[in-house]
Formats: sequence, structure tokens, C-alpha cells
Amino acid sequence: MLFLKKKQINAIEVAKQAGVSQSTVSRVFTPGASVSEKARRRVLETAKELGYRPNALARGLITNKTNIIGLVMREIQNPFYPEVLEKFTKGLRKRGYQVLFVYAEKDELQHDDISQFLEYNVEGVIVTDALLSSKVVSHFTENNIPVLLFNRYAKDFSGHVVCCDNYSAGKKIGEYLLENEHCQFAYIAGDTNTSTSRDRERGFREALYHEGIEPKVEVGNYTYEGGYQAALQLLKSDPQLDAIFCANDIMALGAVDAVKSLGLIIPKDISIMGVDDIVMASLPPYSLTTWQQPVDEMIEASINILLGEISGENEGPVSILLPGKLIERQSVSTFKK
Amino acid sequence: MLFLKKKQINAIEVAKQAGVSQSTVSRVFTPGASVSEKARRRVLETAKELGYRPNALARGLITNKTNIIGLVMREIQNPFYPEVLEKFTKGLRKRGYQVLFVYAEKDELQHDDISQFLEYNVEGVIVTDALLSSKVVSHFTENNIPVLLFNRYAKDFSGHVVCCDNYSAGKKIGEYLLENEHCQFAYIAGDTNTSTSRDRERGFREALYHEGIEPKVEVGNYTYEGGYQAALQLLKSDPQLDAIFCANDIMALGAVDAVKSLGLIIPKDISIMGVDDIVMASLPPYSLTTWQQPVDEMIEASINILLGEISGENEGPVSILLPGKLIERQSVSTFKK
Repeated sequence: MLFLKKKQINAIEVAKQAGVSQSTVSRVFTPGASVSEKARRRVLETAKELGYRPNALARGLITNKTNIIGLVMREIQNPFYPEVLEKFTKGLRKRGYQVLFVYAEKDELQHDDISQFLEYNVEGVIVTDALLSSKVVSHFTENNIPVLLFNRYAKDFSGHVVCCDNYSAGKKIGEYLLENEHCQFAYIAGDTNTSTSRDRERGFREALYHEGIEPKVEVGNYTYEGGYQAALQLLKSDPQLDAIFCANDIMALGAVDAVKSLGLIIPKDISIMGVDDIVMASLPPYSLTTWQQPVDEMIEASINILLGEISGENEGPVSILLPGKLIERQSVSTFKK
Repeated sequence: MLFLKKKQINAIEVAKQAGVSQSTVSRVFTPGASVSEKARRRVLETAKELGYRPNALARGLITNKTNIIGLVMREIQNPFYPEVLEKFTKGLRKRGYQVLFVYAEKDELQHDDISQFLEYNVEGVIVTDALLSSKVVSHFTENNIPVLLFNRYAKDFSGHVVCCDNYSAGKKIGEYLLENEHCQFAYIAGDTNTSTSRDRERGFREALYHEGIEPKVEVGNYTYEGGYQAALQLLKSDPQLDAIFCANDIMALGAVDAVKSLGLIIPKDISIMGVDDIVMASLPPYSLTTWQQPVDEMIEASINILLGEISGENEGPVSILLPGKLIERQSVSTFKK
């Protein structure tokens, strides 16, 4: 199974020609390693002469540092996630790390889904929009490979978590709708098994509970079609509804189109609100009032935490909840007092 | 710079305990390598007892086969590309390959953008929606690393190309609009530097030329806002326009909203058409007639060509142009004869 490639100049030859040790050569090409300026210059000149290309695999084996981060994504087609992928990749690249990308089919990752992260000696793992069983997590932690959950958390999860403060968002959304004199509320949940949806619902209910109000609830499965059908169902059983809070924008788009299909006018007859502030939320046919997740801050925090642990700085699992902000467009009626 | 991890059982210890050579152990864990059934069983049992985990880095160095494919994407947020990423990742995974993901900022990739592909000894490179200079391509071909352009091509490109037949699509779109009795045409180009946009325009012009018609052209830069502004500009200088063909759906969405903002009705007053069939094209406010790219076939062809060359089957650069198909919705007026 040997595949012959053009003979590569290796570190030994460079070391010989430059008159330094092989480990000096390795350090020159390892980001962050310390080496004297004189030796660095000599090695780089020699490497250039010989056409030497650093071999990250060899370096990874020798130093036990591959500079690879494993990134798992599930809902890559939900417009929230391509932005997340782009920003993680750029942010990690700036810090000298490569991304090994895995697409996960199910919400709970099994060992097989990410076994290659262990085989390729990734230095850290980021999981977006999915959960890991504690058995899978321990495969990594036993090997001192930090794991970070992005936009999700789970009880008994022993790794790091960076999330939007979804409970607080749900509560502020409830308060905002109450301030604007809505009385009959509904909530379209994403997936009742995920922390994001459950927390948004908890916060929303908490705000309404103070006014003695309980929302109707339907499940939309985080899809456009799910949001569409859920909205039709809600209006069928409760034509007096005047506000629907959807756990994400994709479902809110469906709810908007469902409501319009019934001949109702938004926001005059009914207000619709979402979460995420995806690009489509800003398009004129939707002009969705929504809750913007602090994506940039979440990504920066995730990278700092993960790389911090890799370099031995952290003392234990870190959980960060970041607030987002309200983006007011035209899908919620507001009363200027 | 040594990062201590839990001591890993290595192949030497497995070999010793199983009573075989180290290269036998390596072959047992190298997909496709040949080894006797008896030796395989003994090695696997021993590995399990000792808790041995194959090290893909070591295997990559020894066999010169890393099972990693480098994938570069630029427009990851254009909804066409998350679908492409998901399908490539799944398709390559089925064939035993991992994806090292790079996000590219500019349309023409420089050496720095993808130098890590060489450092990590990827076995092949897929570039979507961007170009490589021939200098960059030669870095790979000199090392027998095949390069494939997906959804783009360039003159003098020495690698493989898999593309939608954009010229033919543009021509069929022109013919379709002519059959449906449109007379005053405009084309909103994406980026006149890319093969996709140029070919769509060439085919479109070719169809209209036969009827002695020449379309007006504006540039929309493949963005919603670009499409919106381009449509306004076109209608300002030519209010008699009755058909606008947009080089992609994102711009077509902008054109639809711009046209509506002028109080015009689609398709009664003017027809709008796009390319890609992104999810948003099917939403009721747009209901866009569009040209669907044969994504599944393009991805399967790309994987087959790339892996074919990696295993030494291909004889030279392969170029494949695949036809797409018309998706009729409600943004183009049609005359039933």
C-alpha cells in the first residue's frame, strides 16, 4: 500500500546541512516553540535551499501536538451554522489550528461518529448542535483532549459549554411581548429534547406566569414546514392568538407564511417572533423581529477556552452563557406609549 | 513543548504480544491492506486486550496514506454550499476519508491558504467556488496530490473539473423564456470573472441571439442586495422589461423584492428566474422558477474521480459537465398553448 510520492527532503537532511540537531529543526517549524534566532535563521535558509516542507504528521508524532481541532456539526444547513463554521475556521486558523470536519447525522453522537478524532490525535473537540454521551466524552478526557459543547448543554456533561443564555432570552421575549400588550400567547418549540428549546420555553413561561398567563405549545422540529404546520394548528384551536414565539427563525418563517395563508395580517392581527437573526429574517417578506445570538462572542469564548485548556491554563470545566439582543423589525406590533 | 497524554499502547507492543511483525499490525489497521485472516484475528484480539488505538498519524507516515482530503470553500453562507459540504463529508466518510476544512476569503487561492494541505499530507484537494493559480496547483501535482475544482473551471487548469453545464443551462433558460413569449430581457450577472456566471450569460445570449435579441446586463455580485439594486437599475433604464434572468437564486430573491417594491406584480408584469434551487426559492413569498444544479451527481462524480486518481486509476485530468433541470414555480409567466 505504499504510494510513491516525490522524495521529500526530511528534517534529518536539513539538520545535517544546517549543522543543528533534528530537534532544533523541529522546533523551528513548531508554532510557539522556543529556539535561538541564530539557529532559526540558519534552519530557514537551509530549508529554503533544499526545498524542505515541514511535515505536520511527523511533528505531530514527535511533539504530540498536531494543531488539529475536531469540529462536529449536525444542522449545517440551518443558516445559523454555516456562519458558525466560517467563524470557527477563521478564528482557529489565526491561532495556528486546522479543522478536521465531521458531519453528524443524529443528535446524540456515538463513538463511531468521532473515533477519527482520536486516531488523528486532535488536540481538542468542538461539538455544535449535538450531544455526547458521557461514555464518548470520557474517551477524550482520558486522553486529555478537551471537549466543548457549542450552543447546547447537558446535565452531567463534564466538558466546557458555551451557550447563549436561552432562559434569559425567552424571559425577555415574554416581557417584550407583554409590554406590547399581547394577551394570548403560543410557543412553537424546536425539539423538546434540546437544552436550547427547553430553556427558551422555561424563560418564556416564567415571564408569562407572572401575569397569570400560560402559552399554548406546539412542536415545530426546528424546520420551516414544522413551523408552518404548528402555526396552522395553533390558530385552528385558538383563533384569538395574538402572539407566537418560535424557538428559531426557520420555524418563524414557516409561521409567518402559514398565518398569511389564512389571510391574516402581520403584525396587525398577530405578532410573530423568532430567535437567531438569520439572513432571511431581514428580507422584506418576513422582516422578522427576533433574538440575535451573540455568535461572535460565543465563538471567541469557545476558542479561548479550548486553546486555554490545551495550553494547560484552565483549572476545570467552564460554562459560559452569553446574552443576545433583541432585533426589532416589523413582525411584532408595538405600542408607543 | 511536550504535552503529556495518557500513555498510548503502541503498535510495537501489540506486535510483540500477538507474535507478529509491526508491519503486520500496521496492515491490519490500514483499510484495504492485505493480511492473512489468522494474523488479522490475532492482532485484533490482542489490540482489544491491550486497549490499542490505531494512530492515523503514524500510519500516515509509514504508509504515506493519511486518508485525509482537503476541502476549501469560500461562499459557505450561500445556501448552495452547506448542502455541498454536508454531502461531500458524508460521501467521503463512507469511503473512509476525513475532511480537513479550510475557509477561503478570496476568489483566487494563494499558497498560504492551503499550505497546510501539504503539511498534513492530504491525499487529494477539492476546491469549491474559488480558483487556484497554476503555481499553487503545481505544488500539489508535483507531490502527486490530485486537485479537483467543483462548480468552477479555468483555462489552463491542469486538474479535474466537475461542473454544472452552465452554458447549456443559460441557453435552455433563454429558450424557455422565449417560448413563453417574453420579449425584453435582462441578465443579472454574478461576477463576470467566474466561469459559472460567464457561461450562463453566454448560453443565455446565444438563445436570444437567434431571435435577434440582446439582453441588458447588470452585475449583482451574487448577493441579495446586489440583485435588488441591479433589478432597480434595470427597471429604471428599461421599464418595458418583462424577464430578468439572475445568475443565482440569492440575487433573484433580491430582484423579486425590488420588483415588488416598485408595485409590480410577478409574474404578471415581469418574470424572474434564478439558478441553484436553494431552499428559499421554494418559500411562498418567492416561489421562484429556477435551474436546479445536479448537486448529488456532481458530488458523486467528484468523489469518484478524486479517489480514482488517488488509487492510480485515472489516466489524466477529467472534466465533467452535468446538466441540471428546470424547476417551474410561479415567478415566470407561462403561456399554455
